Amino acid sequence: MAIQLARRMEGLKASDVREILKVTQSGEVISFAGGLPAPELFPVKDLAAATQKVLEQEGQKALQYSTTEGYLPLREILADRMEKRCGIRTTADEVLITTGSQQALDLTGKLLLDEGDTVLCESPTYVGAIAALNVFCPRWVEIPTDDEGMDVEALQRRLENCDRIKLIYVVPNFQNPTGITWSLERRRRFAEVVMRHSVAVVEDNPYGDLRFEGIPLPPIKSFDTKGQVVYLGTFSKILSPGMRIGWLTAARPLYDKYVILKQGGDLHTSTLSQMQVAAYLESFEIDQHLARMRAVYRERRDAMIRALEKEMPRCVSFSRPAGGLFLWVELPGHLDARELLRRSLELRVAFVPGGSFYPKGNKENTLRLNYSNMPVTRIEEGIRRLAQAVKEMLDAGALTARQEAGGAKLNRAQA
Amino acid sequence: MAIQLARRMEGLKASDVREILKVTQSGEVISFAGGLPAPELFPVKDLAAATQKVLEQEGQKALQYSTTEGYLPLREILADRMEKRCGIRTTADEVLITTGSQQALDLTGKLLLDEGDTVLCESPTYVGAIAALNVFCPRWVEIPTDDEGMDVEALQRRLENCDRIKLIYVVPNFQNPTGITWSLERRRRFAEVVMRHSVAVVEDNPYGDLRFEGIPLPPIKSFDTKGQVVYLGTFSKILSPGMRIGWLTAARPLYDKYVILKQGGDLHTSTLSQMQVAAYLESFEIDQHLARMRAVYRERRDAMIRALEKEMPRCVSFSRPAGGLFLWVELPGHLDARELLRRSLELRVAFVPGGSFYPKGNKENTLRLNYSNMPVTRIEEGIRRLAQAVKEMLDAGALTARQEAGGAKLNRAQA
Repeated sequence: MAIQLARRMEGLKASDVREILKVTQSGEVISFAGGLPAPELFPVKDLAAATQKVLEQEGQKALQYSTTEGYLPLREILADRMEKRCGIRTTADEVLITTGSQQALDLTGKLLLDEGDTVLCESPTYVGAIAALNVFCPRWVEIPTDDEGMDVEALQRRLENCDRIKLIYVVPNFQNPTGITWSLERRRRFAEVVMRHSVAVVEDNPYGDLRFEGIPLPPIKSFDTKGQVVYLGTFSKILSPGMRIGWLTAARPLYDKYVILKQGGDLHTSTLSQMQVAAYLESFEIDQHLARMRAVYRERRDAMIRALEKEMPRCVSFSRPAGGLFLWVELPGHLDARELLRRSLELRVAFVPGGSFYPKGNKENTLRLNYSNMPVTRIEEGIRRLAQAVKEMLDAGALTARQEAGGAKLNRAQA
Repeated sequence: MAIQLARRMEGLKASDVREILKVTQSGEVISFAGGLPAPELFPVKDLAAATQKVLEQEGQKALQYSTTEGYLPLREILADRMEKRCGIRTTADEVLITTGSQQALDLTGKLLLDEGDTVLCESPTYVGAIAALNVFCPRWVEIPTDDEGMDVEALQRRLENCDRIKLIYVVPNFQNPTGITWSLERRRRFAEVVMRHSVAVVEDNPYGDLRFEGIPLPPIKSFDTKGQVVYLGTFSKILSPGMRIGWLTAARPLYDKYVILKQGGDLHTSTLSQMQVAAYLESFEIDQHLARMRAVYRERRDAMIRALEKEMPRCVSFSRPAGGLFLWVELPGHLDARELLRRSLELRVAFVPGGSFYPKGNKENTLRLNYSNMPVTRIEEGIRRLAQAVKEMLDAGALTARQEAGGAKLNRAQA
């Protein structure tokens, strides 16, 4: 007698990324697959000093239960920072600390989605959001997306013609997976259109502080006058992903519901971890740390772009992100990135096939490359091998095409 | 235009316990309300030493993303400990680290519950389980429970006569809220009955290591030959609740599904926190720490029982737990514990009214008292005040009864 699971479990499976990462844990593989920050840049000593201070001065408090909303001094720092740097009008009362941004996505699904409700997203979109929200069995609709962001006219038509659209999920800065950043104009028009409808927006901004060039653009949340936009931030890409400290800010009626759901979900995020991060922010200059990260990541992005330009056949195109961790590659339409992955793993290079980033998995000639986790020489070597695998596939395809053409002739001769 | 929420949000509200805890954050209130461990017993220095070691020796690893399953050395320690101390046959491959046990409850709801599915539980049961599972809109059925545990005959009748029973949730050691411990015989018969049906069991064991007297009893999981029982453990009550490190062990087919759900829910539990706990367990003797905790908690339990015996009117009964953090009080049937709370808060004493621990909230003459978080003198003083509030209510009730009787006579005379 097998135990009967909930219906939602039928469609859920382990993520491709995760399965690939398992393969690449051997040090020999050059992995462009994960979304891992460069560990050599983690401020280990500063965090150790901050931790020692917390445990010496407030050890009992740090190890005890705390409120679901989160550690107040940390929420105050975050509210202040969002206001000063992003123009988001918020206060600590509207900041909820989450167990990474991933938990904020899970809470959002719980908050908004009945089975069959519609979620609108960029095309492609973040695979972790697909995984978090699929638990609530939504219908996904991808809105066409270009180099400036989501197509607002297409979005408007959807909003006007479809029922049960409950959520729009967007990553306007250095998007995962494409690296695209929305233009200012697109952000403004998106906010205008959205505010004419009663739909919630989740603006996920894990990479905003990792801009290599150009001017920071205001988040969509800064245009939100009706309390529709939930803004997600995280320390995962700017300090430490292992500590699992993220946050959301939402206007009051929604905020209270998020708190109730988080309470049922994990009571609260680690008190100690929150106090460690707060102590780090109080004692050290995170902006100096960010400047160091940006310099290194920019160099790695440049190296990857140079290598792609040098090594890849002309028929392969790719994005040129102005920040963040990822770059997006488009192969000729007849090439399957999953097949490319099999070949490139033989050459000890890994990446994530792009199909995973489409909720309906329909575009298989794309792939995501991460450049933050690898020194320049390894990036150059990895791209060289990857290009070799692409060329082999192209050659094999040409060969097969010739053989098929030959075979077809033969068949005609026989007939 | 208000944003439309998911239907599941209609019934959800913030927990009573939480709202009461907010009131009691002022130091003047003697609070028996929370489920807080004694912070003065936290091994702050040892954890600080363990943390320093981790950050010095493996800082980059501790701050980086890690696997959803959890930190392998910690899972190995836990598997070993469960086998040696509890007779649970398991391996690290079946141990999943969770963000506190609370997350394991959330994942269980996702795994098993469609709207309207039935959850069976003790009567009363843990309020946090009610909160976690209510998100998935189950039907709750309370099984009668006595001093030896759940009534297995009543359970069997339910299992035979009801459809869609997906989960049985139990806390067999020093239950929250009643402090009751299931007898060995009851555990065995429960396991026998359950294994004749295709239903999952969650055995939640946060307090098992806090036994003050008598012999430890084997968990229900140790009788599970069919992979039906999911066993939950946590460091919250034995090391630090603030760190949010719990775990579950489940047989393979279920285990894999839990991992997928946790991945979507928060990717993984803090790498650093897991490594801190593992380093603590490797460098220090947690069993010595547990012995110290047990000695202090036993003293506090004794003090509370003595005070209740001395101060409370005869019509008030209470449990005598052999371990754990809580004791359960039953007032005369006509008294409402929520009304008692209003009165006792005026005397600066807090507790949790028992109604919250019944999924249908039907038994209002009960209350839960916590004795772990308060020195003996405060316990004595708090129970004295609480008894005063009870007596005032009884007197007021007697007065009202006399007045009503008088009023009734008057009415008859007028008629």
